[in-house]
Formats: sequence, C-alpha cells, structure tokens
Amino acid sequence: MEKIRRNERMSAMMKILSASPNRIFTLSYFCELFGAAKSTMSEDIDILRDVVKTFQLGELETVTGAAGGVRYRPRTARASSRDYIASLCEKLSGENRVLPGGFLYYSDILSTPQIVQRMGEILAAEYYEASPDFVLTMETKGIPVALMTANALGVPLVIARRSSKVYEGSAVNINYVSGSSGHIETMSLSRRAVQEGQRALIIDDFIKAGGTAKGMVDLMHEFNVSVVGLGFVMSTAQPSKKRVQGEKALMVMEITQDETPVAKIKPAPWLNV
Amino acid sequence: MEKIRRNERMSAMMKILSASPNRIFTLSYFCELFGAAKSTMSEDIDILRDVVKTFQLGELETVTGAAGGVRYRPRTARASSRDYIASLCEKLSGENRVLPGGFLYYSDILSTPQIVQRMGEILAAEYYEASPDFVLTMETKGIPVALMTANALGVPLVIARRSSKVYEGSAVNINYVSGSSGHIETMSLSRRAVQEGQRALIIDDFIKAGGTAKGMVDLMHEFNVSVVGLGFVMSTAQPSKKRVQGEKALMVMEITQDETPVAKIKPAPWLNV
Repeated sequence: MEKIRRNERMSAMMKILSASPNRIFTLSYFCELFGAAKSTMSEDIDILRDVVKTFQLGELETVTGAAGGVRYRPRTARASSRDYIASLCEKLSGENRVLPGGFLYYSDILSTPQIVQRMGEILAAEYYEASPDFVLTMETKGIPVALMTANALGVPLVIARRSSKVYEGSAVNINYVSGSSGHIETMSLSRRAVQEGQRALIIDDFIKAGGTAKGMVDLMHEFNVSVVGLGFVMSTAQPSKKRVQGEKALMVMEITQDETPVAKIKPAPWLNV
Repeated sequence: MEKIRRNERMSAMMKILSASPNRIFTLSYFCELFGAAKSTMSEDIDILRDVVKTFQLGELETVTGAAGGVRYRPRTARASSRDYIASLCEKLSGENRVLPGGFLYYSDILSTPQIVQRMGEILAAEYYEASPDFVLTMETKGIPVALMTANALGVPLVIARRSSKVYEGSAVNINYVSGSSGHIETMSLSRRAVQEGQRALIIDDFIKAGGTAKGMVDLMHEFNVSVVGLGFVMSTAQPSKKRVQGEKALMVMEITQDETPVAKIKPAPWLNV
C-alpha cells in the first residue's frame, strides 16, 4: 500500500471510532490498519481529540491500562443538549398535537432517526459512568430511542413484551399495576435475553405515574439484574411523585384542561444545570 | 479562530457527513464552518472520497446542480455485505436456537445496535435509487432494523400498529389475512403519519407467506402511497412463492423436521451477485 497521509488516517479513524461509540480500540489496531508507528498514532489521536472538542462532535478519550486504547463518546455540552431539547419542546407545544382525551401526538418525533439518535445520545451521556450491560425498554414506542441510547453506550437493547411470544422461547412474566389506569397489565421477557448479575438501564418514551417503569424494575429483580438508571423522553408534570426514583426525563409536559387544550412542554430542569 | 489544518477539516467533515447519511451538504456549509475557500473544500472532498473507498467505509458522492453538494452513503461492496450476513447465518444455524413449534430465537440479533445498523445499511443500499420518502414497518420485532434502514436513507420511520391507540389520533385500520395462520388480523396507522403521493419502503424482520407484507402494501394503497420496495431480515425457504413480489430478504431459513430440529440459514442468493 502507498504511504497513508495524516489527513487520510485521521479521517478514517474518526469514522471508525464514531461508528462504534464507547468501544475501546487499541492503538495496535490502528497501527496495523494504517501501517504506522505507535508514536504517530498517538499524535493523530491527540489532534483528533481537539477536533471533536472544537467542533462539538463529542469526546475522544484515551483509556490507559491493560485493556486500554481510545474510544469515542457522542457526549456534547449540557447547554447544547438543552437547546436541542428546547427546540423539540417548541415543536410539540401548542394546540395542534393535543388529541381527544388529553394525549399528545409525538409518534413522528419518536421514530425519526436523527431525532431519536440525538435524544439517545443525550440520555446515554448521563449513564456512561453507571456502565450498564444493556438497555431495557417495553414495546413499542420507546424502542427507537432505546435502541439509539444502547448504540451510544455500545451495549445491546432488550425489549420486554406485553405477552409471551412463541418466538421468544421460555419467558418470565410479571403482572404490574399501570399507574395511571390502575389496571393490571402483564410484561414478559425471554429467559435468554439477560443474565443474572448484569446491570440494566431502563429507557422508555413516557412516564406518568411510573407503573410501567416500576414493572420493569420488578422484572429485572426477577432476573437478579440491578437497575442503574431510568431515562425517558417525556414525563408528565402531574403526578410529580412517580412510583420509581431517580428517573431522568428529557421533557416535562402539562396539558391545560381548557375548552381548547394546549400542551405546554419544557426541557426537564436537570438539563439547565 | 486559528487557521484550521486540512487533517482537522477532513476529520470533522467525515464525522458530520457520516452522522447524517444520504443528506446533501452544500460546499458553502463547509466553507463557512471551516473558513475555507471552495477550491480548498473541493480538494478535501476529493481526498475524503478516496479515503472512504480505500478503507471500505462507504461512499462519498458529489451531487451537481442547484441542490448540489456532497453526501455520504454507508454502502459497501456486495462481497463484504455477503460475508457479514454469512457470519450471522452461521451464528443462527444449528440446534440451539430452534424453539418448540419450529420457531427460531433471534430477538437478540434483531436488537443489537451494531448488527441492525449493518443490516439496515445493507438493505438501504438496495433502495437509494428508489428514493423512498419513509420506511414503513409493522410493530414490534422489525422496528430496530427498520429504524437503521431509515437512518441510512436519511428518511423517517413510520410504525404500523396492531390496533389503533389513543395517542396516535385518528387512524386508518385495515384487516388482512395472516399468510401462515390464515387468521384475520388488524393493522392500524395514524392518519398523520404519512402523506398522499409519498413513496414507502417496507422493512420487516420476517417474511413467510407474506400476508403481513401484503397487508402493509394494502395499507399504503389506502393512503395513496406507492411502495418502492420490500426488505426483510429473514425469509423462509417455504413457501417459495410469497404473497408479495420483488421482496429482498437478507437470509433464507429452513428448519428440518427431524426429532432434533436444526436451523439451516443461508445468505439470500441476490447477495452473491
């Protein structure tokens, strides 16, 4: 192969690192790929670290030790996350998206790849230090954002179902009380999906009273899995006390009870810190 | 700002382009971002095009005309797609994943971000020229791969449900005959989700007789939307004639009817071409 120039190496490295967020690549991997010396690669990485910082494209971190190397995390400044969520809140607020019964239409937001990717990255940024082994969500609407959160964390996604399915094999079913309706619901997860002793991050689209979230926490206990965090796209302002603790939602919603109901949606307070 | 060097510009550009697949960025956008002349940016792009080609990271294309610029597509050589799918087939074949009733357990594969991303990119590559406006899937298992296909194409994902939901607003419901069971099922899609005259690409995890796929085609006709293609992760070898035409699956599955059933899974023939 022809000698590869620094600009070529760095561009390729940027693509490879950012395509596998939170995965550690060894220096040797890149040395071999580019036929370059370790000292050269270290210099490349130093420059690249500044580039992602300058252009607010995330973070490049050097990890020392036996399993060391370099990894990319799509984490940006809190202020820029807040601005992004604020722009979504503006889009969702008003009369147009309020449905009969006081529900909000935002399925389009929840399945637009670029939007759920950014929301997933913002949620993931809060849980890197908690080192989850997988992300858990409950079908259906939270799947896209949960997938993108899992992608940013470099871990698998696990999907709980409303009933056991023949193609999931033997499963653990639990019953839980839906917090808002008070109904008894069922949640099912394949036995093969997770392993005892793992750490779960729960991600879902919506939290009101937190009954479903509590169900997911209980489900994880059945598997002897610990829950390291709970993240949501949308939380309702009322009830302010949820049936789970320490949850983080991106947006907080209130719908006025007027003749013409209006949705008032704001970025969650923790995004302002 | 300090003068930005070529290696810095190129790395940042690589990240920005690959984070928004199939989206056209104008030269002016990058000129402004980096404070560089058009001629300089053109040179950068020429080098970057060779880099993604050399390291098999996708394609960089210059689009001419009024809406012109540069775009990134995560399309790689057919042979490398085939090898990737073949490695998945190997992982899924054998006795271990066959469930009672002759079903295959592969939910883990269908919700691992890195895997669905690659599968989505391989499916998307077949449909760039068809220019779909959105990707349609039917809940639940196909959502991750459909989302990643939509992401690679730079279009939204639309999710049909098994019944209408209060938070989807008014909806169009259709009944269809599940090809394998012969049962009548319902499929529902929010009126707000798509617009007349658009072009849909259908993506789902599994096709057997094609009843559900046919249902999705019919649903699109109700919206006056044309279907430009159908892509699946897995197809069963039998029945070989499906109720839809022109579909592309990544893998083809046969499960032997022996005392100990064995799954035989192969890359679809079109991947060999």
